[in-house]
Amino acid sequence: MPIITLTTDFGDKDYFAGATKGAIYSELPDVTIVDISHQISPFNIPEAAYIIQNAYSSFPKGTIHIIGIDSELNEENKHIALKLDDHYFICANNGIMSMLCAEVAPEKIVEINIHDKITSSFPVLDVFVKVACHIARGGTLDVIGKSINKIKPIRNLKPYVNEDKTQIMGSVIYIDNYGNVVTNITRSFFETIQKGRNFEISARNYTFKKIYNKYSDFINFEIPENKRNDEGKRLAVFNSGNFLEIAVYKSNINTVGSASTLLGLGLLDTISVHFIANKTIPDPDNFPPTVGHINKY
Amino acid sequence: MPIITLTTDFGDKDYFAGATKGAIYSELPDVTIVDISHQISPFNIPEAAYIIQNAYSSFPKGTIHIIGIDSELNEENKHIALKLDDHYFICANNGIMSMLCAEVAPEKIVEINIHDKITSSFPVLDVFVKVACHIARGGTLDVIGKSINKIKPIRNLKPYVNEDKTQIMGSVIYIDNYGNVVTNITRSFFETIQKGRNFEISARNYTFKKIYNKYSDFINFEIPENKRNDEGKRLAVFNSGNFLEIAVYKSNINTVGSASTLLGLGLLDTISVHFIANKTIPDPDNFPPTVGHINKY
Amino acid sequence: MPIITLTTDFGDKDYFAGATKGAIYSELPDVTIVDISHQISPFNIPEAAYIIQNAYSSFPKGTIHIIGIDSELNEENKHIALKLDDHYFICANNGIMSMLCAEVAPEKIVEINIHDKITSSFPVLDVFVKVACHIARGGTLDVIGKSINKIKPIRNLKPYVNEDKTQIMGSVIYIDNYGNVVTNITRSFFETIQKGRNFEISARNYTFKKIYNKYSDFINFEIPENKRNDEGKRLAVFNSGNFLEIAVYKSNINTVGSASTLLGLGLLDTISVHFIANKTIPDPDNFPPTVGHINKY
Repeated sequence: MPIITLTTDFGDKDYFAGATKGAIYSELPDVTIVDISHQISPFNIPEAAYIIQNAYSSFPKGTIHIIGIDSELNEENKHIALKLDDHYFICANNGIMSMLCAEVAPEKIVEINIHDKITSSFPVLDVFVKVACHIARGGTLDVIGKSINKIKPIRNLKPYVNEDKTQIMGSVIYIDNYGNVVTNITRSFFETIQKGRNFEISARNYTFKKIYNKYSDFINFEIPENKRNDEGKRLAVFNSGNFLEIAVYKSNINTVGSASTLLGLGLLDTISVHFIANKTIPDPDNFPPTVGHINKY
Repeated sequence: MPIITLTTDFGDKDYFAGATKGAIYSELPDVTIVDISHQISPFNIPEAAYIIQNAYSSFPKGTIHIIGIDSELNEENKHIALKLDDHYFICANNGIMSMLCAEVAPEKIVEINIHDKITSSFPVLDVFVKVACHIARGGTLDVIGKSINKIKPIRNLKPYVNEDKTQIMGSVIYIDNYGNVVTNITRSFFETIQKGRNFEISARNYTFKKIYNKYSDFINFEIPENKRNDEGKRLAVFNSGNFLEIAVYKSNINTVGSASTLLGLGLLDTISVHFIANKTIPDPDNFPPTVGHINKY
Repeated sequence: MPIITLTTDFGDKDYFAGATKGAIYSELPDVTIVDISHQISPFNIPEAAYIIQNAYSSFPKGTIHIIGIDSELNEENKHIALKLDDHYFICANNGIMSMLCAEVAPEKIVEINIHDKITSSFPVLDVFVKVACHIARGGTLDVIGKSINKIKPIRNLKPYVNEDKTQIMGSVIYIDNYGNVVTNITRSFFETIQKGRNFEISARNYTFKKIYNKYSDFINFEIPENKRNDEGKRLAVFNSGNFLEIAVYKSNINTVGSASTLLGLGLLDTISVHFIANKTIPDPDNFPPTVGHINKY
């Protein structure tokens, strides 16, 4: 029996998530249901896209992902089901899947057409659960929808590169639980443009000349812990989802502050990367090529 | 093995919910536990009543619902277990069940009397779990309590109707995750009083002459999307639980605002409905009878 | 199949908790996963220690507890796995386990050494899940780490007793969902020092001469409910984890206030207990010996 996951903007207080699980268990008593998140900001498509893209691939092949964001059915907001990377996704055709589909081509997309007798102000419960249980029982997408080729895109989610490829203009797509600022610049996108050159990342008044692979990589452990001053250091890192992130070491939004609060960075703010031609060829085993340090203007 | 659900005001940070689940699994390793909500406002009986009423019926018959709100045992706050609509409910006799019992007559109510050797400041863990596991194993209510006929009511939870039935005075019982304002006026109650008449709903300085069946029903899809201005529209809707709700289309409390913040509506505020005699008999298939539009005074 | 629990500072919005569960189910489709809390304040070791100490023992023997707080591997922050009280714990060696290990001696501690090929900015997903699944399949700690004898302590977590044992100086280690203020003074520690003497607890400008065993114990039920004024009463209580707690009856941080907000008590604030020699030997069956009442200076 496959797993069914839930990613919604329902919040954790309302009855919506609980009722949805009840409806699934009513159809499939032995299924495993996993909450990915019910804390997506209301109607925030890019946030939902970021969360599902980073969560789905940890689940086994065949997992069915219900995404309940802006899912009310109307003539401009149809319901779709996709098979992609051997996972299934059920959501509204409102752009949520376009970020993931840009990375991995979907095997099949259908527009769900089982709504004939359902009038609902709760489509996740009334429609998505039915589709998910159908798939979990081994049903095909063709039975619950008609094939389509295109889905609705999200605008402005991809970073922009200038013509001579000396600059990436990215933007903030997510602020995580630690207040770290996630950009839309992925590691693979960055490396494709970088081609081994040195670089400088600008975020508000701060610049970064190195991107770390984990948060504590900047620490000089040769200095004793009580003589260092690590907490609160600003750094750039490729996060666990391989997105470029501006972070503050051991940040806490409510106490010491975070990248978001300390650097004044919010959703959709610009983060830019300037590439500088290297004089010597860097050692390809030593990525990134420059010795890292963090400058404030 | 039946499902056991949890609805509490424990929050999602403390160890209370986790410990409760541990105690259940210690007795019943194969049971399925579902969190309905741990985010009920502390000691808020009407909120808990609203959540459990709207969540329970999605679960299979036989499900056991533990409700941990204001559950400390003392001589004025006894523990009860109910069978109602083939579901079981375990909670304190503090009014939580009175809203649901007004809709569906309970088959059986017992006052739990297994406390002899339990001194507890954590009755959900020490008492409710024991009762739930007893029921899950097929035990009867008579073994864990003595039958009673009445439960404690919640005051002021039902809307008021004036003598000549031209007006309903309701109140706000819940603010949902989108900031939508839920009243205590159910669709069936409304329709019973309405008898097909036109109406005007008043909420602070706003009036509504139509109640929609879903949020996007007000949209005129003949106008292209980029020429409409749908987001932020105020509307009245029967929500998925069939309660009259004042909503703002695609609202977000933290960004664009919500019905609660934009209209200044909080818990217990009054929402009134005035009925107006129709000149012609409306088409009963076309509910509500008037063409909807939303006026600001 | 044992249960695997999760206690982290991931929050409930990010993909971290969902992805971790996906990774566990990918290895062990039939395991039961229980969230204890993902709402630990970021990098807050004492909070995590308090939560896990109070949650773990409700779970069956053999349960595996993953604790994901400040878990990035570096030369000063190694990963450990412990067996203690027939439960398993997997976390960073950053002090989280020192509170629990002071109460119950661990049977075995290993420093995890399976990182050879893992470069990770998400060690819970990449390392802790692997260790947990290894243990769940019956694997031993010796296979995944080398034995160590000592773990890193948390400083200042234990209360201080003066030389003539007339005073305990404790501090606030946790604020719960109701705003109740939990100290680091356990019931057993208190009773060991008290030796039956009267006492006075000081918290800011308030004193308490009795510690209740449950919140409503202070109520005089001989007075009718509508003539009493119980809500908002300040009291000292041993909470369900047997820690001394300063509480406000039926408190709510967002409405009527709480012990934390009304008494102005925050994390690390001092709570002191002064012991006073009794003139007569108290009745040992009647703990605490004095008639309780609560004084404001």
